[in-house]
Amino acid sequence: MPDMSIIDIDTPAVLIDIDRVDANLRRVQDYADSHGLALRPHIKTHKLPRFAQQAIDLGAVGITVQKLGEAEVMADAGIRDIFLPYNIIGLAKLERLRALANRVRIAVTADSEETVLGLSSAFIDALEPLRVLVECDTGMGRCGVQSPAAALALAQMIDAAPGLAFGGLMTYPAAGQVEANAAWLAEARRVLTDAGLPPAIVSNGGTPDVWRAHEVTAATEHRPGTYIYLDRFQVAKGVGSFADCALTVLATVVSRPTENRAIIDAGSKALTSDLLGMDGFGLIEAYPGAVITGLSEEHGTIDLTNCATRPAIGDKLRIIPNHACVVSNLFDTVTLISGDAVVETVPVGARGRVD
Amino acid sequence: MPDMSIIDIDTPAVLIDIDRVDANLRRVQDYADSHGLALRPHIKTHKLPRFAQQAIDLGAVGITVQKLGEAEVMADAGIRDIFLPYNIIGLAKLERLRALANRVRIAVTADSEETVLGLSSAFIDALEPLRVLVECDTGMGRCGVQSPAAALALAQMIDAAPGLAFGGLMTYPAAGQVEANAAWLAEARRVLTDAGLPPAIVSNGGTPDVWRAHEVTAATEHRPGTYIYLDRFQVAKGVGSFADCALTVLATVVSRPTENRAIIDAGSKALTSDLLGMDGFGLIEAYPGAVITGLSEEHGTIDLTNCATRPAIGDKLRIIPNHACVVSNLFDTVTLISGDAVVETVPVGARGRVD
Repeated sequence: MPDMSIIDIDTPAVLIDIDRVDANLRRVQDYADSHGLALRPHIKTHKLPRFAQQAIDLGAVGITVQKLGEAEVMADAGIRDIFLPYNIIGLAKLERLRALANRVRIAVTADSEETVLGLSSAFIDALEPLRVLVECDTGMGRCGVQSPAAALALAQMIDAAPGLAFGGLMTYPAAGQVEANAAWLAEARRVLTDAGLPPAIVSNGGTPDVWRAHEVTAATEHRPGTYIYLDRFQVAKGVGSFADCALTVLATVVSRPTENRAIIDAGSKALTSDLLGMDGFGLIEAYPGAVITGLSEEHGTIDLTNCATRPAIGDKLRIIPNHACVVSNLFDTVTLISGDAVVETVPVGARGRVD
Repeated sequence: MPDMSIIDIDTPAVLIDIDRVDANLRRVQDYADSHGLALRPHIKTHKLPRFAQQAIDLGAVGITVQKLGEAEVMADAGIRDIFLPYNIIGLAKLERLRALANRVRIAVTADSEETVLGLSSAFIDALEPLRVLVECDTGMGRCGVQSPAAALALAQMIDAAPGLAFGGLMTYPAAGQVEANAAWLAEARRVLTDAGLPPAIVSNGGTPDVWRAHEVTAATEHRPGTYIYLDRFQVAKGVGSFADCALTVLATVVSRPTENRAIIDAGSKALTSDLLGMDGFGLIEAYPGAVITGLSEEHGTIDLTNCATRPAIGDKLRIIPNHACVVSNLFDTVTLISGDAVVETVPVGARGRVD
């Protein structure tokens, strides 16, 4: 796209600043390296094989995905070390997992006997055992065994199960609860080591507390996702600044029905209705006083009351969304930019991989 | 898919009950017919050409879309009468609109001089004038002129603009404000008629008040969307019952970490984070006491405290989402069912048409 600028892009569109991507990847990789932590980035934020490979080239040990379909896309693109921290249930998915294990290094998690039994039945005649980590609920209140003792019991079951190998412990922790997470994992590590099953990997996750990952001393690796793009929520959490945010949604003002109201062509189909506890559905960089007060599917409603200057019909606005990951899942393509120059428009390879 | 049943479908998946679709389409078409209202269904809810055609076969005068991309998909599929109630801004979109007007009967809306000038410049040398309706803000607080007098002024501008023809008035009203909407449109109709510009079409919209559409006596047509599937929000509004809901999300219980907690493989990437003012992110048909309290992208967290019986790991659950339209935009395919039998899995033709 020779000499094409952001202003030439039709809207709504997702812009990815590749210089900020590079800086964000390096910043966290350097941090992990300096603390001896393995980095295993979660690709759910970008869903692009090229950024998965870029992180590996910078030192990541592999990637994390959340769905088999994402793993398949990444394997097709040449990624060779994939962690799928999910309970894989049912014959259809177990067959796909077995096929994946034939071509890439893969590990999964389990938090129940039912999951372990299914995995074992699928891998009982495999050449290589499937590595299975025990998912631990260290405070998030989602999946996971509820105590270090329960982690040991499930680890022992995995260790004894035909076709499986105990791979370690995994958590997705609650944001802000670093001490509790660290204490839980340290105790679990001690209990398992005392029982003769020391976890080879203790995998911690999340971007909100990424700069405190080294405080979770039991962990051997970290799985941040949003750090590559950052977003309004991560800035609110102090992970970076708005100047670090690599993903923006470009929208056009299509209506100015009143002095204090603007309507843009980006609604919940572009920005999603994720509020994550904040006011408004995103930050408009050029009009920081503007508040995106409401979204229909194809309209965003903006209150301009506190704006000194106001956008006109036809003006294009760049919006930092509340939650970058969910935006990536809504667009078939994203446009890579460097400064104001358009570099390339690329398909979002793992978009919409729901299963 | 011979003899395939719902229980054989891998999850998460979207199921569409075609018998309920047929009944929902007929019920509202019969109502519109009985009141002499033209019906112009909004396809944003289903994004499937086949259902657009089915509504037309039952008596709809055409369809409504919200994006040029949706119009293009529907035109490609053979739909010949399309209303696009949106301010079309910018050369790229005006060129696409002009191309569409060469092959289907199309009308758009405007709520500003800027939009009218752009449309006129694009159609100044067209063989047929483009029909443009004036969008009116009758209470929604989104797009639209703010008074019947402003509607007249813009109608006169359209009427005088080269390449354009004044097509009437359009509103997307606020739910529950039937009287105010009716009064606004009646006054606008009177003002325009007195000025010698009687609106050929007065287009009203929305499913929440669809059964009161006849009370808006100035309207000539209605544009409901969600009525084809219904959802938890529309049932809360009294439009139909849960037994009428045609779209469900099928999910699998992947974890039962505590007695009162279940985790399913449908999160915000399947159900969206739309709450629409309700508690919980959907209704689980088999466990009406269960509350979907939280969604991550790939996990749904369910509180089972008030359930007499509880689902086990591996059980598949059918969920009526809060908002059906946004779910349709998240899945590349949906599975048509009749009772418990699978009929066909079809691509969602107009999914992800963001511009």
